[in-house]
Amino acid sequence: MPKTKKDKGKIRIIPLGGLQEIGKNLTVIEYENDMIAVDCGFGFPDEDMPGVDLVIPDITYLEQNVHRLRGIFLTHGHEDHIGAIPYVLRTVSPPIYATKLTIGILKNKLEEYVLPQAPQLNVVRAGETVRVGEIAVEFIHVNHSIADACCLAVHTPLGTVLHTGDFKLDLTPIDGEMMDLTRLGELGKKGVLMLLCESTNAERPGFTPSEKKVGQSLEYIFNSNPQKRIVIATFSSNVHRVQTIINVSARHGRKVAITGRSMLNIVGAAIELGYMKVPKDVLVDISDIKRYKPEQLTLITTGSQGEPMSALYRMAYADHTQVSLGRGDLVVLSSSAIPGNEKLVGRIINKLSGDGIEVLHDTSIEVHVSGHACQEELKLMQALTRPRYFMPIHGECRHLAANRELALEMGIPDRNIFVSEIGKVLEIDERGARFAGTVPAGQVLVDGYGVGDVGSVVLRDRRHLSQDGLIVVVATVDEDSGLLLSGPDIVSRGFVYVRENEALMEEARKTVQRSLSRSLSASGRRRGIDYTQAKTQVRDDLFEFLFAKTGRKPMILPVIMGV
Amino acid sequence: MPKTKKDKGKIRIIPLGGLQEIGKNLTVIEYENDMIAVDCGFGFPDEDMPGVDLVIPDITYLEQNVHRLRGIFLTHGHEDHIGAIPYVLRTVSPPIYATKLTIGILKNKLEEYVLPQAPQLNVVRAGETVRVGEIAVEFIHVNHSIADACCLAVHTPLGTVLHTGDFKLDLTPIDGEMMDLTRLGELGKKGVLMLLCESTNAERPGFTPSEKKVGQSLEYIFNSNPQKRIVIATFSSNVHRVQTIINVSARHGRKVAITGRSMLNIVGAAIELGYMKVPKDVLVDISDIKRYKPEQLTLITTGSQGEPMSALYRMAYADHTQVSLGRGDLVVLSSSAIPGNEKLVGRIINKLSGDGIEVLHDTSIEVHVSGHACQEELKLMQALTRPRYFMPIHGECRHLAANRELALEMGIPDRNIFVSEIGKVLEIDERGARFAGTVPAGQVLVDGYGVGDVGSVVLRDRRHLSQDGLIVVVATVDEDSGLLLSGPDIVSRGFVYVRENEALMEEARKTVQRSLSRSLSASGRRRGIDYTQAKTQVRDDLFEFLFAKTGRKPMILPVIMGV
Repeated sequence: MPKTKKDKGKIRIIPLGGLQEIGKNLTVIEYENDMIAVDCGFGFPDEDMPGVDLVIPDITYLEQNVHRLRGIFLTHGHEDHIGAIPYVLRTVSPPIYATKLTIGILKNKLEEYVLPQAPQLNVVRAGETVRVGEIAVEFIHVNHSIADACCLAVHTPLGTVLHTGDFKLDLTPIDGEMMDLTRLGELGKKGVLMLLCESTNAERPGFTPSEKKVGQSLEYIFNSNPQKRIVIATFSSNVHRVQTIINVSARHGRKVAITGRSMLNIVGAAIELGYMKVPKDVLVDISDIKRYKPEQLTLITTGSQGEPMSALYRMAYADHTQVSLGRGDLVVLSSSAIPGNEKLVGRIINKLSGDGIEVLHDTSIEVHVSGHACQEELKLMQALTRPRYFMPIHGECRHLAANRELALEMGIPDRNIFVSEIGKVLEIDERGARFAGTVPAGQVLVDGYGVGDVGSVVLRDRRHLSQDGLIVVVATVDEDSGLLLSGPDIVSRGFVYVRENEALMEEARKTVQRSLSRSLSASGRRRGIDYTQAKTQVRDDLFEFLFAKTGRKPMILPVIMGV
Repeated sequence: MPKTKKDKGKIRIIPLGGLQEIGKNLTVIEYENDMIAVDCGFGFPDEDMPGVDLVIPDITYLEQNVHRLRGIFLTHGHEDHIGAIPYVLRTVSPPIYATKLTIGILKNKLEEYVLPQAPQLNVVRAGETVRVGEIAVEFIHVNHSIADACCLAVHTPLGTVLHTGDFKLDLTPIDGEMMDLTRLGELGKKGVLMLLCESTNAERPGFTPSEKKVGQSLEYIFNSNPQKRIVIATFSSNVHRVQTIINVSARHGRKVAITGRSMLNIVGAAIELGYMKVPKDVLVDISDIKRYKPEQLTLITTGSQGEPMSALYRMAYADHTQVSLGRGDLVVLSSSAIPGNEKLVGRIINKLSGDGIEVLHDTSIEVHVSGHACQEELKLMQALTRPRYFMPIHGECRHLAANRELALEMGIPDRNIFVSEIGKVLEIDERGARFAGTVPAGQVLVDGYGVGDVGSVVLRDRRHLSQDGLIVVVATVDEDSGLLLSGPDIVSRGFVYVRENEALMEEARKTVQRSLSRSLSASGRRRGIDYTQAKTQVRDDLFEFLFAKTGRKPMILPVIMGV
């Protein structure tokens, strides 16, 4: 029975990632029996997750509702929006919809994985609408630090949910296309039910500068350094930035060589798909740079985050096959440190500076601009779309709170603003909007080939081990007599220099010996040996001894073997 | 025989810390047989030094030359300039000279340590000169983020070495005293031989704003939040900042309560020594705050770096005895994150924002200014003192390089600029200046009560343990027959969830069993068991098995006991 106008269904909005933290963006939007997911990214581990490679969203809820899942819609091709797709495709395989560049990048990525079935990848153009069940998803062009980014207007019979993705307003963008303010305004006139708005820069006043600003800074740098080879590190996905560097280089009569795996991949895809235009004879292979003088060359490289093994890192540590840096080079970091990477970035700047190589970065000159909307742009988004309800997304708690303040400032009543949590369901129907329970959600840790086999206990142990190291106590006991047959031996790792602390380690051994003798004689021959009690006793006695002597608390692992 | 004018001696300048990294500042300046040390601070460990509490300079060179060491001169009371003194005083005990507040803070600190002899602490006023042997040290007032900071003019028969300490120029300082530009200019007129100049902000263009700017921001915040209790976290050593907060609070009719151990200590010392003036009846005890309405209160607290266990942290996590925060509170972080602390600071902002508590910090409003000179101030220091030689100090390589660029810009010839290294000796005599060898130098790690017993091997093990955890393999072998008596048993920590990976662990055990059997039978009965070979074999076989299965490389510790 078709629904009458008075009998509209429910929308449910469920963030499964990208809230309360940066990265692993994933939002579920449902209208009755139809469900879509917007984005599906990974995040990087916190410093309290040693050894973890990646963090992906828990997709139990998608798996449980796979029969209703009509598609995954991607706003753009950054890893925090597409990086978890290979893991999701292990268990569910809905159609994927995105613009051409995003699909191109995803395709490259998926080639590295063995998947149970071929992915269904669908290219959509900005301005187009995809219908799935009762939902229609409209792709709307926005500016961002990657080309071909969109926000999504999710039209349902109850009303439109607008998901901004990541965006900024760039009035002078490199590819000539401003964010589609007009369409957003049209939607606002018709009425937007809910605005899901990104929050990354919600704490920052003003407007984010145009990408063109970077071009001006580069122009100045090229003019002031006509004698030097110029090496520029930037985010490989920032196709417009790379385009700008190529343009400036060409204007200054320089050849451009590209190095770094992801830079080569993405630039390759971008040229192939028509997102970059390279003047003839400008690009040269990195292995051919010896044929040119330093002042005839620009190198574009990965490693702007100081990542060990990246091309720039290898250049800095004299470990790059084709490029060795010297005083004739100028290195430009056209980037900013992602939060948590400050020390890595600092290390590479220090290494280069210490070797007498000049480094320019965003502390002293505007060689980078953000890809995210600042406060005035966020307010513009609200002003154009005039949503009834507002939910800040994509950000840590601080950013969500700041974005909420902006909504209040723009006149959205407090009761219509919903600061949500991972797994929390927001329900909207004709009577209003309200939180209504939760679904399974959380984070899954990827370590090596393992997905989800590392959790809080394992991480707690790793943190403990890293703080004060480890003491293993080993002894062999005769089960009949309760006498020590061998040991106790003590092996330590990460605790102290054993050679310089022989007296301490010998005293520790004696402490264990006394502790064991007491336990073993207490156990008595007839009742058998109480191994658990003996181990606990050893752990307690040794802990007390070592803490009193050293102020440290190494992990103590007693192993007692009966023979 | 007294030296004639033509027969002047040598100056030697040796940085033992504070170069190529932030913190643990310590510079040795010698004239012939007289030696002084300037500052003696600690640094914080890098993220690749897990479990380490502090890093202090290696003072072997001071110990070896204790008979020539005439004194330690402190520029100001920050931990990176005085924090290593308690460790130095274990082995050498020269007189210490500093201004009143610096000595006051040091005294407080030294009370926590047992020292072999009473320290010789001497108070010097800015403008005064201390003579030790042929060296005369003049204290000159500068502005900085702590009161009573000085730079030191070290006068010797060969000429004057000017050590800037940490400084900024504040034309409207809170305590009414501008940095003594006139005296610096006078020294410049007479001729400064060498300028040792701090480099912290050498990458930052322009001037550092006055401390007064923070007062204006606070005034605005207090005006806009008349209903709220205001909680302000800042650096406890920033006496002027605390004074500003008290003044603004008093103007708005608020009482001020102070919490956090170091804040109470330093504010106590500053009031006692006359460095802070508190209007009558403004300060109240933190245990009395219940007697006032929220809008009548300002709280000043430690924890601006998000330090776990600090007062603000305990408030945020509902673990502070006297203060529980709620929506009626406004929290202000009047600080910036020290490099490396960004995530800790972010965590506390997120926790508070997530609980609906408004937080203001330096991203959105100018509630903090740096205590260090930016480029124009650094150039002003050079312009006034007109040094013949220049050495950038106090900074990572990047900052030293940037400061060197400023010196070039100011017209100091390249050959007169010396970018030094820890332990590198710069020699100056009448013929010129040159590097001349090195002395023992480096860093000493403090972990718990241990000073220097943790080094590269221990840290490498800790890092390894933290990445993929640990596998201990234990077995008991009959020494006569070479047969396994017990085990092999496998114990893991920080590797995988054992309960969910029983099959993997059982397969691992079997791998070890096969490996051991092979080794033991190969050893043969007559030749005895080759334990080293058996352990290596187990390690190799298990490594290969686990890496193939999991992509991880846990530390493997085989323990084989003979009975």
